[in-house]
Amino acid sequence: TKRYSITLLPGDGIGPEVISVAKNVLKLAGSLEGIEFSFQEMPMGGAALDLTGVPLPEETLSTAQRADAVLLGAIGGYKWDKNEKHLKPETGLLQLREGLKVFANLRPATVLPQLVDSSTLKKDVAEGVDLMVVRELTGGIYFGKPRGFGTNEKGEDIGFNTEVYSTHEIDRIARVAFEIARKRRGQLCSVDKANVLEASMLWRKRVTAIASEYPDVELSHMYVDNAAMQLVRYPKQFDTIVTNNIFGDILSDEASMITGSIGMLPSASLGESGPGLFEPIHGSAPDIAGQDKANPLATILSAAMLLKYGLGEANAANRIENAVLDTLNRGFRTGDIYSTGNKLVGCKEMGEEVLKSV
Amino acid sequence: TKRYSITLLPGDGIGPEVISVAKNVLKLAGSLEGIEFSFQEMPMGGAALDLTGVPLPEETLSTAQRADAVLLGAIGGYKWDKNEKHLKPETGLLQLREGLKVFANLRPATVLPQLVDSSTLKKDVAEGVDLMVVRELTGGIYFGKPRGFGTNEKGEDIGFNTEVYSTHEIDRIARVAFEIARKRRGQLCSVDKANVLEASMLWRKRVTAIASEYPDVELSHMYVDNAAMQLVRYPKQFDTIVTNNIFGDILSDEASMITGSIGMLPSASLGESGPGLFEPIHGSAPDIAGQDKANPLATILSAAMLLKYGLGEANAANRIENAVLDTLNRGFRTGDIYSTGNKLVGCKEMGEEVLKSV
Ligand SMILES: CC(C)[C@H](C(=O)O)[C@@H](O)C(=O)O
Ligand SMILES: CC(C)[C@H](C(=O)O)[C@@H](O)C(=O)O
Repeated sequence: TKRYSITLLPGDGIGPEVISVAKNVLKLAGSLEGIEFSFQEMPMGGAALDLTGVPLPEETLSTAQRADAVLLGAIGGYKWDKNEKHLKPETGLLQLREGLKVFANLRPATVLPQLVDSSTLKKDVAEGVDLMVVRELTGGIYFGKPRGFGTNEKGEDIGFNTEVYSTHEIDRIARVAFEIARKRRGQLCSVDKANVLEASMLWRKRVTAIASEYPDVELSHMYVDNAAMQLVRYPKQFDTIVTNNIFGDILSDEASMITGSIGMLPSASLGESGPGLFEPIHGSAPDIAGQDKANPLATILSAAMLLKYGLGEANAANRIENAVLDTLNRGFRTGDIYSTGNKLVGCKEMGEEVLKSV
Repeated sequence: TKRYSITLLPGDGIGPEVISVAKNVLKLAGSLEGIEFSFQEMPMGGAALDLTGVPLPEETLSTAQRADAVLLGAIGGYKWDKNEKHLKPETGLLQLREGLKVFANLRPATVLPQLVDSSTLKKDVAEGVDLMVVRELTGGIYFGKPRGFGTNEKGEDIGFNTEVYSTHEIDRIARVAFEIARKRRGQLCSVDKANVLEASMLWRKRVTAIASEYPDVELSHMYVDNAAMQLVRYPKQFDTIVTNNIFGDILSDEASMITGSIGMLPSASLGESGPGLFEPIHGSAPDIAGQDKANPLATILSAAMLLKYGLGEANAANRIENAVLDTLNRGFRTGDIYSTGNKLVGCKEMGEEVLKSV
């Protein structure tokens, strides 16, 4: 038996519910492939703030750093919304990404045939959408310095941030994206604002340079405003998208909504080495927390990404992915993806049905 | 008779075609309301580059500055795409905005009942969408300093830009947005990334402060990633959106595509005083330039915004808006908005039909 240690970060809102379901699925899929997991559950986000006064306790980070992979539920909630910046749940998430050095954020947006009607896009536009946003996650305006508050030459208060990318940061995220595009349909679209921003000009130059290492991948470039339009107009034109931290934040959320089922979408954040961070793209949904209404499938599919990208256990990952499809085919739906004719279930029951299919 | 001087900047691609049509509509609508125009046509963008070597000749800027309003067609094209930054058509546009000090960019996105089928969104999601994006246009990361290229402490090349806003810049764009929301449905949604960026924290603080001057307007705040989702999920929730330069660039384009008819959408850019800049939001469409295929309605509606917001001539503006609706009701369509059962016309003929309805 292979053994892996997994840090679980349930977080806030619906986080604990979906993590508890995903943990069981991970266990079963692993055991059927001769894999054994040890789990360490650690506080993070608002839960950690309440418990320890900080959104990412040192012990949580160091435990995560020593793990083979990290599975996160969701963080945040009204309760901590007015906190100062260093006491926001979100700040804990940014510290976790930085602490794990996970610079490559993979966000698939796939329209499953079973759920095509959930999209607000017309059926012929939505069906068959299968794209992957590769977002740079530890650089750019999220982390750039200088940042802060001050006064300008006119004596007015200002707030400022720095968008900055180095060749090294661009090259490594570009390579991740080219590798992924190569394993998909061989098309990579790099999104920037190179007609205005110097940081984007360097981005475009380096991505173009790295392309020579991947002659089998077709590279194109698109301005971010146009990309925001094209995702609505004709999302099927995209295979793999690579972009910076802030554009990736915006475009991956837009792409996810185009699928109409963000309760279904997982994500993976990977570094050069060390544990990856895996989490559903949805938020903590405080309004339905504790009511057994959450859709656990995004977290379950995040566990599948953990197996595939984090541990290289493709067989166990496929088991989970197939189990999710099978459960959908058997008609089980949580409220967010329910349509008449299907069977409405809660978070726990959905988890049990997936277990039956693993 | 009232007299106004209008600077026309036809620009590149389909720009000259749509400007020539809009000019005639402007003339007629004006004359019916006792208004006379003098027009000065000046080179700008790629056309100016070819003629004078720079994308915004001094004479073009100074003529525009002396005018009562400026109507722009479109700029850019493949020919100049590889130019260095200071020789790009886009740079001319940024210089024009800066030179005219037009800090408030108004971008309506309206789904006309006649064109609801053009949207890629389902009919019940698209119909009735009527929102206005108020984008800050002369600040933020587009103009912030320092910017450029350099090396970091590790000796790697870097490209960098500065996102910066002052209280003064935020306050004035907020007031424009509150005024507009007040004349619309009284709802203003301010979009930022205040959970991460200091520039956004100051933005949120100041917009919240200015709200006390507008007790009749309901203010809400939304993160930019969520806004990109909500525009796809349920665009009817929005009345007026106010946001910074780069988020406004992305979200206004996304919103325009949601209407499905970007060939229909005008924009206005206004300053504290001095001439406003009015332009269709579509680009120069080099692939159909010179073929009499362009949809002139966005430019015609920009001329209506020019009358309304630039000159305070609401009657003449209404004439044009009604003429456009009437022309659509009579079934005339350019290729981009054509559907069976309607009459397909070119750019010129569309212009002539609008003239009949003015
Ligand atoms: C919570 C927030 C800091 C975060 C981000 O902006 O990266 C979130 O929106 C995401 O995309 O994971
Ligand atoms: C051409 C470009 C510089 C411009 C911008 O980004 O502002 C355009 O996209 C727009 O929105 O008017």
